Amino acid sequence: MTAGLGTRTAVQLIEIFQTPEAVFRASRSELEAAGVGPGLAQSITSGCAFEDAVTQQQKLAEAGAVAISVKDPRYPIRLKDIFDPPPLLFARGRVELLNELTIGMVGTRRPTAYGTTVAGRLAKDLTCAGLTVTSGMARGIDTAAHRAALEAGGGTIAVFGCGVDQIYPSENRKLAEQIARDGLIISEFPMATPPYPQNFPIRNRIISGISLGVLVVEGGQYSGSAITAKLAAEQNREVFAVPGNITSKMSWGPNLLIKQGAKLVQEWNDVVVELKPEDRRTLAAQCRNRLNLKDNAIGESKDSSQTSLAYGPEGTSRTVLQHLKPDAPVTLDYLVENLNGTSPSEIIAALFELELAGLVRQLPGKSFIKIWID
Amino acid sequence: MTAGLGTRTAVQLIEIFQTPEAVFRASRSELEAAGVGPGLAQSITSGCAFEDAVTQQQKLAEAGAVAISVKDPRYPIRLKDIFDPPPLLFARGRVELLNELTIGMVGTRRPTAYGTTVAGRLAKDLTCAGLTVTSGMARGIDTAAHRAALEAGGGTIAVFGCGVDQIYPSENRKLAEQIARDGLIISEFPMATPPYPQNFPIRNRIISGISLGVLVVEGGQYSGSAITAKLAAEQNREVFAVPGNITSKMSWGPNLLIKQGAKLVQEWNDVVVELKPEDRRTLAAQCRNRLNLKDNAIGESKDSSQTSLAYGPEGTSRTVLQHLKPDAPVTLDYLVENLNGTSPSEIIAALFELELAGLVRQLPGKSFIKIWID
Repeated sequence: MTAGLGTRTAVQLIEIFQTPEAVFRASRSELEAAGVGPGLAQSITSGCAFEDAVTQQQKLAEAGAVAISVKDPRYPIRLKDIFDPPPLLFARGRVELLNELTIGMVGTRRPTAYGTTVAGRLAKDLTCAGLTVTSGMARGIDTAAHRAALEAGGGTIAVFGCGVDQIYPSENRKLAEQIARDGLIISEFPMATPPYPQNFPIRNRIISGISLGVLVVEGGQYSGSAITAKLAAEQNREVFAVPGNITSKMSWGPNLLIKQGAKLVQEWNDVVVELKPEDRRTLAAQCRNRLNLKDNAIGESKDSSQTSLAYGPEGTSRTVLQHLKPDAPVTLDYLVENLNGTSPSEIIAALFELELAGLVRQLPGKSFIKIWID
Repeated sequence: MTAGLGTRTAVQLIEIFQTPEAVFRASRSELEAAGVGPGLAQSITSGCAFEDAVTQQQKLAEAGAVAISVKDPRYPIRLKDIFDPPPLLFARGRVELLNELTIGMVGTRRPTAYGTTVAGRLAKDLTCAGLTVTSGMARGIDTAAHRAALEAGGGTIAVFGCGVDQIYPSENRKLAEQIARDGLIISEFPMATPPYPQNFPIRNRIISGISLGVLVVEGGQYSGSAITAKLAAEQNREVFAVPGNITSKMSWGPNLLIKQGAKLVQEWNDVVVELKPEDRRTLAAQCRNRLNLKDNAIGESKDSSQTSLAYGPEGTSRTVLQHLKPDAPVTLDYLVENLNGTSPSEIIAALFELELAGLVRQLPGKSFIKIWID
């Protein structure tokens, strides 16, 4: 809120003086010694912005939001690496999501039915794979992605182009409430900032900045999502795109991105395989932990020889695993025939979960083998 | 037709003895000296296949077909480079097409409406760009590609998995007649060979073998077109694929190919830009020649100052070119407003032709500049 102080200088001063507070406590000569021009040094030391800051504090408290400085351990680690990380992030919701492995999903505000469907499906599958879906809560693809992530029981991060206490577009009021409860809303814009159009391109660098990569679902050739993809590439983030019919205007952008080197995504795993080995290991470990925890919770009153009687999808995963072999593929049909009392869709869900956990590999012809882990 | 004589040995013997005739004139000891085993040497010298060969000659004459040996100057130059070029090609139609720049187009026999549409559109545009579309005259994508190529006034090559005097599938009788007249039918299988299923994978290597590259339009993950793409890659041919919705089973194959490195094709130019510079130059020269020839034919009774009154699309190309500048982009709207008496679709067609000829470049926002050629 200090006049004349830009994002990059602010972060540099915090680096020099260690904390934001120390920057404001510094004298004009100390600031000038740190390379700040006399005008800006006066602006910082004047304390003119303090009144506004007090108002901000009140608004933060009212909205149940917090401000996280670049020196805060909760500040997203990947966001620090971009050219111009915001010195302060306003956050409302589950702040711990900031250091999860996140994937940005962006696309047009006017998707086709195809775009909405695949955005939802991929957001759900990526959430199941342990990734946190990040988007901008705009109409269209963003909304579909957040919704599906929440439905899959995941946290999701919405990066706003306005204050985290604002709702834009207004039709997403309910979704915003749900994200603030089960997910996280963040913004670098102060509380009460309206959704100025110029804020959105600025906001987009945060979506890619906190993410391992950005997935573009639908968009025209010169769309906002194409810009986000460009930013992501400049930030050294992986760019993913969902192809579509060349007769569809809305698939022109993603198809062009693929032509330019973006990774083509047919299913969730096309994203996961491109992640760094350590990130893939983290996801697999998360997934295994989840399976074990659930299995233990259910199996408490049962001994392990009775697991085939276990109830629910977690028990099913374990049962399915028992029917698989590390040396010979077993077909889905065989599993359906031999797992009495378990529906095909439960078996498919279990196989999916086991594949995510790195315990099972799918082979051609809908057959599966167990992966030997020692 | 010689028992025990395979494709590769046949071609090697022709290389050694210079002509197919010389191979049959050779003695057993000469053949054995050339590395042929005693059994095969006897089979070659026995002349047992000669009766069949006479029947073949008759059938060739009846069908108006010719046999082209690997030593014939008309034999496709690129086909000689593959691992196992056929020693003899049977051909019916415009044999001169064999040494045109050709592009293979393959896809499923059961396409969606999308697949049929884009196969037709791309075949037409690639034909207009001066490429000869080659396919297998199967149901579906192949048929759509041949039809569109013929409608665009181009020659098209159909590679049969049966004799060139056979029709398969029978519903394509009329199309086959048209191809034999305006295009070319070829096969390595002797006259009267039925369409045995095992012939088709063998045939596919010819489609890719005579082509600069192969474009896959629709197909499942383990489809015949995926096999053709694999063959093409092994033959060092460029592999192209048209993306499609990930929810469409028929786009799974092409999308997977793109993931594996095939070039994504949104429009004809995505094929042309990947060709070798000398092939691109040949296409551009062809196209310029075609334009000049047509312009001259029309302009005969007019002097060049009157070209804006010229009639027909060729005249339009010249008029459009006069309205373009090498230094400042001109919009399509400007052209439509200023070229009285010329319909927008004629102007678009002219711009398209000029772009193909390398005389015009399209810039973002439907604007165009003239390319300076000195």
